Order: sequence, then structure tokens, then C-alpha cells
Amino acid sequence: MGIITLTTDFGLEDAYVAAMKGVILGLAPDAVLVDVSHQVPPQDILHAALLLEGILPHYPPQAIHLVVVDPGVGTERRPIAIRTERGFFVGPDNGVLTPALDLPGEKTVVHLTESRFFRQPVSRTFHGRDLFAPVAAHLARGVPLEAMGPRIADPVRLGLPKPVPAGPGTWLAEVIHVDRFGNCITNLRAEDLDGPPEAWTFEVAGHLLRGLKPTYAAVPEGALLALVGSSGRVEVAQRNGHAARTLGLGRGARLVARRAFGPAGPPDF
Amino acid sequence: MGIITLTTDFGLEDAYVAAMKGVILGLAPDAVLVDVSHQVPPQDILHAALLLEGILPHYPPQAIHLVVVDPGVGTERRPIAIRTERGFFVGPDNGVLTPALDLPGEKTVVHLTESRFFRQPVSRTFHGRDLFAPVAAHLARGVPLEAMGPRIADPVRLGLPKPVPAGPGTWLAEVIHVDRFGNCITNLRAEDLDGPPEAWTFEVAGHLLRGLKPTYAAVPEGALLALVGSSGRVEVAQRNGHAARTLGLGRGARLVARRAFGPAGPPDF
Amino acid sequence: MGIITLTTDFGLEDAYVAAMKGVILGLAPDAVLVDVSHQVPPQDILHAALLLEGILPHYPPQAIHLVVVDPGVGTERRPIAIRTERGFFVGPDNGVLTPALDLPGEKTVVHLTESRFFRQPVSRTFHGRDLFAPVAAHLARGVPLEAMGPRIADPVRLGLPKPVPAGPGTWLAEVIHVDRFGNCITNLRAEDLDGPPEAWTFEVAGHLLRGLKPTYAAVPEGALLALVGSSGRVEVAQRNGHAARTLGLGRGARLVARRAFGPAGPPDF
Repeated sequence: MGIITLTTDFGLEDAYVAAMKGVILGLAPDAVLVDVSHQVPPQDILHAALLLEGILPHYPPQAIHLVVVDPGVGTERRPIAIRTERGFFVGPDNGVLTPALDLPGEKTVVHLTESRFFRQPVSRTFHGRDLFAPVAAHLARGVPLEAMGPRIADPVRLGLPKPVPAGPGTWLAEVIHVDRFGNCITNLRAEDLDGPPEAWTFEVAGHLLRGLKPTYAAVPEGALLALVGSSGRVEVAQRNGHAARTLGLGRGARLVARRAFGPAGPPDF
Repeated sequence: MGIITLTTDFGLEDAYVAAMKGVILGLAPDAVLVDVSHQVPPQDILHAALLLEGILPHYPPQAIHLVVVDPGVGTERRPIAIRTERGFFVGPDNGVLTPALDLPGEKTVVHLTESRFFRQPVSRTFHGRDLFAPVAAHLARGVPLEAMGPRIADPVRLGLPKPVPAGPGTWLAEVIHVDRFGNCITNLRAEDLDGPPEAWTFEVAGHLLRGLKPTYAAVPEGALLALVGSSGRVEVAQRNGHAARTLGLGRGARLVARRAFGPAGPPDF
Repeated sequence: MGIITLTTDFGLEDAYVAAMKGVILGLAPDAVLVDVSHQVPPQDILHAALLLEGILPHYPPQAIHLVVVDPGVGTERRPIAIRTERGFFVGPDNGVLTPALDLPGEKTVVHLTESRFFRQPVSRTFHGRDLFAPVAAHLARGVPLEAMGPRIADPVRLGLPKPVPAGPGTWLAEVIHVDRFGNCITNLRAEDLDGPPEAWTFEVAGHLLRGLKPTYAAVPEGALLALVGSSGRVEVAQRNGHAARTLGLGRGARLVARRAFGPAGPPDF
């Protein structure tokens, strides 16, 4: 039986996550449950989407990813499930599953309407337990996605902030996540930065960081640096320190990346 | 092999929970361990009992629920286990297992005295690891409850605060739990409120909330509301906000529920 | 298939731990994953080593213990794995695995150099996911340790602070960990204190605690006490209180243990 990952904003002080797990294990006793995080800030859809993006490449392609950050529970927002070449995804149609929609390859998106796959009665405040958890369990048991509702073509996508080009070799980027270590992860990806890593400089909170470093240890203790982190994104970090606190950065903080050119000047774009 | 759920106040910064899990898996390698919460405030028996109440209906009837919130460890308080039609329950006899005692149907309560089912030597400060965890594992392996000690008829029950009727269509209730979202869960249950949901008003912290709403989304962003939450209890909530912070509410805060009557006046009680 | 425990400083707000679990389950689908803690303070090697020491005796001898607290990731610090009579240990060679090195019995330490057991490409910032997780999974699948790299004889050991004898029946000790309950766990072990428990006094933060108590409940509510905790170490505690907060103690705080002698005076040492 398959893996079911769980990502929610329910926290671990309450009974919500364990109630969902009970429902799943009642239907699919052999499912392997993996907590991604239940510490998503309440109703922070972007945070949950970034977590999903971060784990997705590392799971077997049959895994089922359940994501419940659901400020619209009880409204007309649709419950959906998605089949991709990298697994199944179950959650509310509010953009939280955008990383699944952005995957290459074939994708099928279904509006979950077949209530025989739900826990009855379905409450109007906790679809995580009553709708999404049982659907994930039924998928783990092999119920075909198509049996669960009609296909839809217009799932909601999250407008992830993209870096903005600002002239040759210049990007206006921003911090999209601060991790536990204070690393400030930006929307700039390794592949956005062409040319030699040492040619780039990063201006952030009045500091100028020279070069893209290969690792935290490339600078002295306490020094700030920019590097490509484990998710493939440019991060602003501080060796054995907390860059976000040191620089006063949070989500949305701006970063300017500039590529220095040799004496020949910038290439013709 | 069965499910064993774990609810403790041990937190996740220390080795206590993982020590318990090692003991269980050493005895019952196929047990499926599910964390309910280890974030119970230290020694908060009521909080743990409410968690147990919240998950209980959602687990298969063979599940084993281990609850260790144990301020009396090392005293004369008895270690007990309970068999019910909704599973087994293991923990200290301090009221934390009250939701199991309140279940309908047949119940057997045993004082755990047979030390051959304990880890030896039993420490005097950590019965979670040395006594309750191995007992849960032995139950999962099929050891009959009756082999573990004598039946008792007087387990400790928690005096859960009950709502007080105060005249026709009026309840004095109180907040018994604040969840991660700031929802203030009260001791008033859906079935306590007869008549149409819109007939009830709720007075709390100087605010008057009109009607029992079907869902958070029934009011505008930021508005306060009362509704029946996923546990079947009346909650005071704030749409996409944190009601407890907004209203300054915590456990024990008072709420008055009043039913409005039509021109015919209150019914004869 | 075996148990793999995970101890990291990655927290549970980010995708790091779940990425590691995905990698493990992709290679060893039947592994039983047990979280010890991901709340190790960032880069706190001593804290992680103490957690490992705390759980080690309670796991089956085939378990695999993965510990990733790795401030030197990307430097020359070696990745290692250790086979002992109490299981396998995988992590960076920075002292975090010292409790495994201190175990009695035969031990084999290997420098992990065989990159075919790593996830490719290996990032320079996240060896937890790319190197340690896949190595643990391959060990769980039965790959022999010797296939993973050359034996080494000089793994890094942590200098755990030891209590210092200061004359007959006197120890200068220190707090090495404060747990969730505020219990202050010291580097003094039960076996360091010979003679009757009531003969010892403990001087800490200007307080004198008389006798080693058998259990928290041996003193009145709110009173301070010293006792041997569940890990076999002397702890300073407060019954149903938080000793660390009450006394202003943290890691490194000093404690003097003195043994009182009868009228015959101290024994000849």
C-alpha cells in the first residue's frame, strides 16, 4: 500500500491531524503516513505550496500528497484531486496544489463530488477529516480518480511571485520563505543566473553580497552569503547565524541580483 | 497488528517520546504508531482528555490509545487499562481516560499490577516508558487485559465542567479549549440547543453573537461568529482571525447562550 | 525491515525532514521511520548527542539511528556510519555520534565515500537528504557497512563535560540539559553518588537541596528537589513546577554535590 503525505495548518496541539489519520487508517490500514508539516501558518496557502514543491521530487511516483490549508472550507470552493506522473494530490481548489499543476507530463484534475467516498455526515468546517482524508485513503486502496467526480480544466493556480528582469544581467527578486535556520529563500532559481557564479552580486537590506558561494562554509563564521540552496533557489544565509534576523528580512523582502561584466561590457541582448 | 496512538505532555524536544516508541517497537514490531499530540501543556489532564475525546470516534474499534499525562507518577495513583467497544485505553488513573469511561457499552477497567508486563526495572519517574508503553505493546500482541491485573470499579473520573441551565432557553457555558486557530471551544453541545439555530444568541466578553452559523464563511472576513464545530461543540470563532486573541478569551471564560422566543413566549418547561 | 530513527535540527516548519523521509522510503519502502526530535536547537551537537544517548538503550539492536546536526556541511568534515552491538549510526563526523562510540562491545566506523549509495547529484548544503538518508536506507536494505567506505580509527568525540571530584564526597557538576518540564539534568550519574541517598546535599543557585529523593512526589507541591531521573542522571526538579525558570538555570549552570558524613568523619580515600 502506498505512502500518504500530510501537509496542513492544523498544528499539533489539537486533535485535528490525529482525527484525519484515524479516518485514513480505518479505510486504508496499510497506508504509510508521513507528516510533511502541520506548522503551516494558519491559512498560509503559499507556504504550504512551497512545502509541496520542496518534497515532491523526493517521493516515489505513486505517493499520495494530501494538503489541507483551507480558509474557504464551507464555501463554494471545490475539493479536488490531481493525478500526475509524480503521484496524486488531494486538497482544496485554492491554489495550494499549484506545484502539482506545474509538473511536466500528463495531468488529470477531478472535482471531488462523489460523496460515497466521503465520511458521512460531512461537517461544514472540517473537510480535512470528512472529505480529503477519506478520498486519499480510497486512492491508496486503488479507487480510480475518475470515479470520484468530473474532470475539470480550470483549477485555481497560485500566482507565485516571479523575479523581474531589469535590464541586462539584472533581476529584481524577493524572499518567499524564511527557514528555521534564518536562511532567506528567494524566487530566483539557479538557472536564472547565467555565467560564472562569482560574477553575480546580490543587494539586500543595504548589504552587498559578492558572488554565489558553493556552500555555507565558503565564508567565515558569522559572514553573510548568497548561495543556491538545496531546493535549487538562491538563498541569503549567514554562516552559523540567522540571516533573516540579522538583516531584518521576511517574506516579500526585495533582493537585486546583478551580473558584473568584464571590460568588454555587457553582451548584446 | 494494531494501531497504538500516543498522547502525552512530553513535548518533542526531549528523548521521552522516542524512548517510549523504542520500547513499544521492541515488543510489538508491527504496531502502527500514531502521534496524537505531545504538546499537551505540562500536567494538563483536562487538555489530554479532550484530545482523546476528539480522536476516539475516528479510530478503528481495535485501536489502543495510550495517554500519559501523569503528574502523580511515583505516588499511589494506579496505572490502569480499559477495554471498551471503541478500543483499549492505557494510562494513569487520574481522570485522563474519562472519555473512555463515558463511552456507551461494556467496559472493563483493570488495575495494572502484573509487573511481568512492565519494563524492568520500573523507574519511579517515567512510567510512560517503563509501564504504560510495554502494557500497550502487550495488548497489541494480544495479551488479554484480564491477565494484567484485577478489575476495579472505581476509576477516577474528571469533573468536566458542564453547562448550567439558567431558566428557559438559557445556558451558562464556558470555554474549555482554545485551538490553534483561536477558535474557543465550549462545553455546550449541539444537542443542548433545541429549536432553530438562528434563534440562539451568545453573549461572550461583552459581545453579542446572533444565531448559530453553519460555517465560518457565513460571516464577512474578520467578523465573530458562533457555530457548531467539527467536534459537535459550540465554538466562538472569527472568520480568518483569532477569536481568542480578539476577545481575550481563554479556558474558563464564560458564555451565555439564550434562545429568543416568538410572540407566544417561552414554552412551558 | 528495520527501524530508522531520525534526529535533526531541521524543525518541522520546512520541507527538509519530509524530503529525507521521501528519499528513504523510495529506497527502503518497508522501513519503519521514528522521529526522535527535529527540535534540536540549530547546530547544537551536544543536545543531539544527549538525545541519542537517551533513546539508544530502548531500541532493538538492529535499529538504524540517523542523526543530522551538521554545521560543517560542505566542508571537509567526514560523513560516517558506525556499527555497534546496539545498532547502526549514521551522521556527520562532528561528535554527534559520541554515544555510539562510547558503547561497550565491538564497533566499526566507516568513512562514507562510496557515492553510489548517495542520491545524485549530492548538494553541498543538504547531506541529510542526499547522503545520510540514502545511506541509512541502504543499510536497512542490508548493504554491508564495509561496502560504503574505508574503516577509520579516529572519529571525532565530543568532550562531554564530566563532573569534577573536589575532595572526599564532593563533586562539582553542571546542568547539561533542561527538559520541557524545567527539570535540570546534570552530568552527575547515580553511580557517582555512593552511600545512602539521604546523605547527599546539592547546592545550586544559592539553594541547598537535602537528600536524593526517590520521586517528584516525595516533596510538597512547588518544592525543589534533587533526584535520579529516568536517564540515570541527577536532576534538579520542582514538583509540578519548572525548576529551570524558578532557579534561573540553563545549560552550564553549576551544582555542588556534597556527602555528609557521620561523627566518624569521612572515610579514608
